[in-house]
Amino acid sequence: MTARDPGRYEQIINEARRLFARHGYQGTSLNMIAAEVGISKSTLYHHFPDKETLYRSLVATGMETLFNRVRDAMQGQGPDAAQRLSAFMRASIEYYEECHDSWVSGSQLFWMTDSEAHRALVVKWRDAYEGLLKEAVRDGIASGQFKPDTDVSLAAKFLLSSLNQLSRWYRPDGEKTAQEIMDCFVGMFLHGIEKA
Amino acid sequence: MTARDPGRYEQIINEARRLFARHGYQGTSLNMIAAEVGISKSTLYHHFPDKETLYRSLVATGMETLFNRVRDAMQGQGPDAAQRLSAFMRASIEYYEECHDSWVSGSQLFWMTDSEAHRALVVKWRDAYEGLLKEAVRDGIASGQFKPDTDVSLAAKFLLSSLNQLSRWYRPDGEKTAQEIMDCFVGMFLHGIEKA
Repeated sequence: MTARDPGRYEQIINEARRLFARHGYQGTSLNMIAAEVGISKSTLYHHFPDKETLYRSLVATGMETLFNRVRDAMQGQGPDAAQRLSAFMRASIEYYEECHDSWVSGSQLFWMTDSEAHRALVVKWRDAYEGLLKEAVRDGIASGQFKPDTDVSLAAKFLLSSLNQLSRWYRPDGEKTAQEIMDCFVGMFLHGIEKA
Repeated sequence: MTARDPGRYEQIINEARRLFARHGYQGTSLNMIAAEVGISKSTLYHHFPDKETLYRSLVATGMETLFNRVRDAMQGQGPDAAQRLSAFMRASIEYYEECHDSWVSGSQLFWMTDSEAHRALVVKWRDAYEGLLKEAVRDGIASGQFKPDTDVSLAAKFLLSSLNQLSRWYRPDGEKTAQEIMDCFVGMFLHGIEKA
């Protein structure tokens, strides 16, 4: 095994993600990560000189993946703003379901971390991600599909809140799938619950 | 001072709320609370035999207050479901702004606590509170004001998510007040952002 072993690199990232998600940043040590992967601490140091570097790689990888997936899903929708918006939510929740640990370490650690450097990194990716949603809302207003007085920033916050809170109450064995729930939220968001 | 001194009782509750909100349940000791209030630990024991009892009083007081306020605000609105729903959000955010520590200790500790007894107490009040919102949605459907296919439970979750996430991004010195933001969310929720 060399420092460039890509399988080992990913294995460390995944194990660290799982441990950070469970124990938080402060509660996870490089020793714990090395033990879970089944390597020595010195082998771990080959890949990551310290916990900070490991954490940054982990967050960047996770949020970059989310961003790329969501962007690709939206681009596949053509010009309809409502469909692109829906694709944003569907791709996000799909990522959430597939990569639960990664989602938790991205969103939860954002609020738990004391480090400005940690926050800055997450903020950068969060803004880019949120930017995709704002862009769809903005395009919808420009094309006349959405109401002209829509507050772009608050519209994005409203939808993202429903996504960010989902992990707090969603149960995989519940009546509806996460996708169905998201579709329902998007439906209310687009058309409202009050009769015209 | 006696064990029934109501001012002292409230002073302890308020100080404990502030400390729990800042340091979490585990991170706060009766010693810390006594020191902040400026009383001896034995005086504190007059009022609360242990931390558990103090915490339960604190949560019950905070959530009961929220529940009563929101219920009263809704009852003042008459039969219009949209106005009652809006009153729910306005009274909730008003409580949030006035009693920030209480809000944090209610909502944040809910997710941080390991104790089943703690959760059960909070769940009881949360369900009663959420029930007020569901009732307004249900009434609106029954009266024909809201769309008949509205999912009552998800509609409530959607609105509550925006409220619960607010503390994560809202800044009191921002462009809009919390009340204005809530009105905007309620407007999108009722009427949607897409043109008919």
